[in-house]
Formats: sequence, structure tokens, C-alpha cells
Amino acid sequence: MMSALASALLFASVAQAQLKPEKQVEVRQAGYQFMSWNMGKIKAQVVDGTEPYDQAKVAAAADAIAGIANSGMGALFGPDTTTAQLGDMTRLKPEFFSNLEEVSRIGAEYVKNANQLKTVAAGNDQAAIKQAFGALGNSCKACHDKFRAE
Amino acid sequence: MMSALASALLFASVAQAQLKPEKQVEVRQAGYQFMSWNMGKIKAQVVDGTEPYDQAKVAAAADAIAGIANSGMGALFGPDTTTAQLGDMTRLKPEFFSNLEEVSRIGAEYVKNANQLKTVAAGNDQAAIKQAFGALGNSCKACHDKFRAE
Repeated sequence: MMSALASALLFASVAQAQLKPEKQVEVRQAGYQFMSWNMGKIKAQVVDGTEPYDQAKVAAAADAIAGIANSGMGALFGPDTTTAQLGDMTRLKPEFFSNLEEVSRIGAEYVKNANQLKTVAAGNDQAAIKQAFGALGNSCKACHDKFRAE
Repeated sequence: MMSALASALLFASVAQAQLKPEKQVEVRQAGYQFMSWNMGKIKAQVVDGTEPYDQAKVAAAADAIAGIANSGMGALFGPDTTTAQLGDMTRLKPEFFSNLEEVSRIGAEYVKNANQLKTVAAGNDQAAIKQAFGALGNSCKACHDKFRAE
């Protein structure tokens, strides 16, 4: 309980100090979209093999992903930024804020997996990159499945 | 001349392998917007002093900026993604593609300055961070002044 309350206060205070709700949504969507572009490059080169593997490009993509994941995106999830307040502009379900312990757990996994992908992408062990890519994708999916509206 | 031609071919081939023109615009705007959010955090903490300086947060913001800057955004600037083809959806002037040597020079400065900001933000010399922040802002402005429509 304390943990969830602390998280809630953290989310609220950090977010309110910075951006309006609509802007929080815009910026977090931008972050995920840019991340998704970079995930796509790694997928094409290391998972699907539809593009030739280029170690430097995969490492750069993983750096961008990790940089975004570590940038404190929690500040972009104010309690007034769900579908309940903002309608179609976001897909964030209000349930996000009644499950903050789970959110924190998934968020920590997501950051850990992004950092692991960055670590292995600095080398050229494609099997390790593929595995780390899959783990990060599962973190994305875990949050989407629970807290993103259709 | 060779350099500009090589750049043009590079831009064209990389871009076309990946995303449709509209998507290139969407993704590059997302990258710049997420970068801008992180620039804003550094500005508030180190330049304007409107928020207290937090070394870890400034370092994380600089990491995100550098990660985005190094991710190969040239691939998002296909020759068919200017105001001439896409109208209001973008502010990229067609002149961008008749000045590719200058674009390359500004782009290289921008990446260099983003990396310098990341380097100094890993420490806590706020004067150095402020200087690097200013240099990066100047790189942004150099491109906007010449190649971004009003």
C-alpha cells in the first residue's frame, strides 16, 4: 500500500510540475513512436532478417531505445491523462492508476530489458540481441495488454 | 559535388527501404518532440534554474537526446518528404535537398554537440552543461533557420 501511494504521489507531483495533460500524452506517444521505429530496425536486421545486420545501426537503435526508456517517462503519466479525462486522444485506461504496484513492476522490467538490449547490442551476438529484443517486447506487451485500450 | 550526390543517394536509398513519406515525417517529428521535452528539463534545471538541479535526471535527459540524435535520423528525410509534396504536414523546405553539403555539415555538428552534452551531463559541472546545451541549441536553430518553414 505504501509503495502504491508513494508511486501515485510521485507520478502526480512530477507530472504536474511540468506539462499539461494533453502535452504529456503527446510527448509520451512521441517517445513510444520513436522507440517503435528503432525496435523495427532491430527486428528487421536481427529477428526477421529482412535487412542485413549492421552492428553499428543495431547498437545505435538500442541506445536510442534505452535513452528514451530511462528518461523518466513516469512524469508523462499524470493521473488526469487517461481515456476517462481525455477520450480518444489517449489509450491509457484509468485502471493504470488503481494498479500502480503492478505498473511499477512492469515499468522496472521494461527499463531493465531496455538496458539489457543496449548492453548486448554493443556487441555482435545476434542470438543474445534477439533474446533481449524479445524480452523487451514482452514488457511492452505486458503493459499494453493490461492498461491500453483497444 | 560528389559529397552532396553521395548524401543524396544515401538519404534516398535508406529512406525508401523503410518508411512511407508520411510515416518518415511522423517519426522524425516524434524524435524531435521527445528530444525537446528532454532539452526543456535541462534548460529548467541548468540554464533557467526554475527547477532544482538533479544530476541523474539531467544525465538521463542528455542520454535520451544523444540516443535520438545518433539513431540515423537521416533515413527519415527522404526527398519526397518536404512541404512541396506533403504540404502542412511538415515544415521541411524543399531547399534542404539542394543544400545537402550544408545539411551534412549542420547534421554532423548537431550529433557532435549532442554527444558533448551527454559527456558533460554525466558529471556535475553545470557551467559546462550550460555551454554544451547552448551549442546544441544553436545546431537545432541553424537547421530551423535555413530549412524549416514558418
